[in-house]
Amino acid sequence: MSGGAWVLGVDSGGSGLRIALGAVPGGAGASAAGDPGGVRAVGSVEFGEPVRTGAGGIDAGHLLERLVPAAEGLLRRAGADGPTAEAGLAAVAVGAAGMTTLGDDLRATLPDALRRSLGAGRLALAADAVTAYAGALGQRPGAVVAAGTGLIAVGTDLSGGWRRADGWGHLLGDCGGGAWIGRAGLEAALRAHDGRRGGSAALLARVEAVFGPPASLPGRLYPRTDRAAVLASFAPEVARCATAGDPVAAGILARAARHVAEAVSAVCPPGADREVALAGGLFRMGDPLLVPLRAELAEHLPHARTVAAAGDPLDGALAVAAALATGTLRLPREPGMLETITLLPATRT
Amino acid sequence: MSGGAWVLGVDSGGSGLRIALGAVPGGAGASAAGDPGGVRAVGSVEFGEPVRTGAGGIDAGHLLERLVPAAEGLLRRAGADGPTAEAGLAAVAVGAAGMTTLGDDLRATLPDALRRSLGAGRLALAADAVTAYAGALGQRPGAVVAAGTGLIAVGTDLSGGWRRADGWGHLLGDCGGGAWIGRAGLEAALRAHDGRRGGSAALLARVEAVFGPPASLPGRLYPRTDRAAVLASFAPEVARCATAGDPVAAGILARAARHVAEAVSAVCPPGADREVALAGGLFRMGDPLLVPLRAELAEHLPHARTVAAAGDPLDGALAVAAALATGTLRLPREPGMLETITLLPATRT
Repeated sequence: MSGGAWVLGVDSGGSGLRIALGAVPGGAGASAAGDPGGVRAVGSVEFGEPVRTGAGGIDAGHLLERLVPAAEGLLRRAGADGPTAEAGLAAVAVGAAGMTTLGDDLRATLPDALRRSLGAGRLALAADAVTAYAGALGQRPGAVVAAGTGLIAVGTDLSGGWRRADGWGHLLGDCGGGAWIGRAGLEAALRAHDGRRGGSAALLARVEAVFGPPASLPGRLYPRTDRAAVLASFAPEVARCATAGDPVAAGILARAARHVAEAVSAVCPPGADREVALAGGLFRMGDPLLVPLRAELAEHLPHARTVAAAGDPLDGALAVAAALATGTLRLPREPGMLETITLLPATRT
Repeated sequence: MSGGAWVLGVDSGGSGLRIALGAVPGGAGASAAGDPGGVRAVGSVEFGEPVRTGAGGIDAGHLLERLVPAAEGLLRRAGADGPTAEAGLAAVAVGAAGMTTLGDDLRATLPDALRRSLGAGRLALAADAVTAYAGALGQRPGAVVAAGTGLIAVGTDLSGGWRRADGWGHLLGDCGGGAWIGRAGLEAALRAHDGRRGGSAALLARVEAVFGPPASLPGRLYPRTDRAAVLASFAPEVARCATAGDPVAAGILARAARHVAEAVSAVCPPGADREVALAGGLFRMGDPLLVPLRAELAEHLPHARTVAAAGDPLDGALAVAAALATGTLRLPREPGMLETITLLPATRT
């Protein structure tokens, strides 16, 4: 293994499962900086359907059915281009949505299964917010807000533990996320329909164009199992109306920006020049959200600096696996957030 | 039928089915004032389980399975105490939650079934908001807000049609209702848990007392099918914290009061001295909600006068049936809100 080691990153979320194989350069100190760039991705596999969740939480058997053959295939294809496949995987990092509350089957099943099937030496189980953090900021202190349909902020100064804010789902929070913005837009449209104060004729016109008659909207939403996604599907319309000058839509995005900044403020470690990364699809909405958000962050966190996310949660899982393989993992270990397990004695040469 | 006529009122909602038999006094003009007092309830039956809703909407067969035997039993028991049972039912009024969007099976099935089985002469199909209106204000012009887990406001000046506001359900509106208040209270509790701005330590303590550790809350809420009811179950805790002086809880109820007033304002007919009735279980919350609500109504609707609801939606269904039987129905007929059908030629003597 003087040529380095193989590591596997796994990102399991509501929209599917992604698996990437990475090569960690050999030689002491290669990844000592903890930079996600210390690992080179050599191939990846994607499944469009999410891993099943059952009574015991995320179904480890279902995950393994996909993960093991995919990893074997990636190792075979990459074999000539890195460490020998016989070396096995030095480390596997699995980032999963719901790891905190739904990870018991993974904790019970994965260690032995990955040791036997893939010869994995170490295992990290991480909340998806932690892999989002590692993808965005690597192992530097700061705060990351991960926002798509939902929204969660996590931060650390590396010496303490993790701080997290929101991520409670569309009925309890996720304030400022895609479902939150879409829901607020639909409410404003229906206010206009009813003649209540606070309504937006522009948003009502978009509801009619996208969903049809407003009276049909409850029937299109409530029976669905993916209600949060249906709500979030209207968020781009809110951005569009805000860009076109609708003050109600602009007000919704201004409130969303304040919620995002409040979540970041709750988790960002004190200290000068902290990095705050905005990660996830929500921020592709661009200026209608980013302009008020920059203003809110400047007000709430004058000591912080907003940076682009270096990578996504799959990059983050690979980075965690690489740091674990090379003994350079500095992100805080904490139950439900980031747990690591040694499966085989280290065989580093 | 010189002794008057029998009428049946039906209230079908999310918490069950209630059926009442009423006697309308004989003689011309007895109910001309359109007062719900013009009908005397002589017996009622209650089912704790709601009528099933299927692909075709509210299941008319399931409703009839309960309604017909119950009505026959009520007529038998009341036989000596009013019009003769052989006279049949002069009118039946069915008020149902979801009549607007889920009433197609009722419209198709009830007319013929009620004529054959109970000899019903006339039928009214009403939205539950309309029977709430009739129960609260009878046939007088004004506005009624019906609030429990959800919230809807309806108003009429009798000469035009119905105006309605909100009633869109817990994800799209029902602003200021029980689920809305409970949801806002849970969000404020979790903000305190996270260290985000706008949190309430008092509400967080109540969450911990009622639901247990905050981390368990998503798992207790999202898998349920009665999520709106779970959210609404926390509304009394918000009222309790507001009464105890928690400013965040008081702020939630102040916002709820504003939403209620906005919905009432959107439907209340113009004109001096309009009556506004507050109907439904939410208002039993008392002063924490009613004090800010009275202030909001005074500001939004200075020309209106808040009155106590005279009766509930079952009283309202009976009143509609009585007005229909006596040819004195003045509430506006409108598809989805209040539809009437003549089943048998009038046999009045």
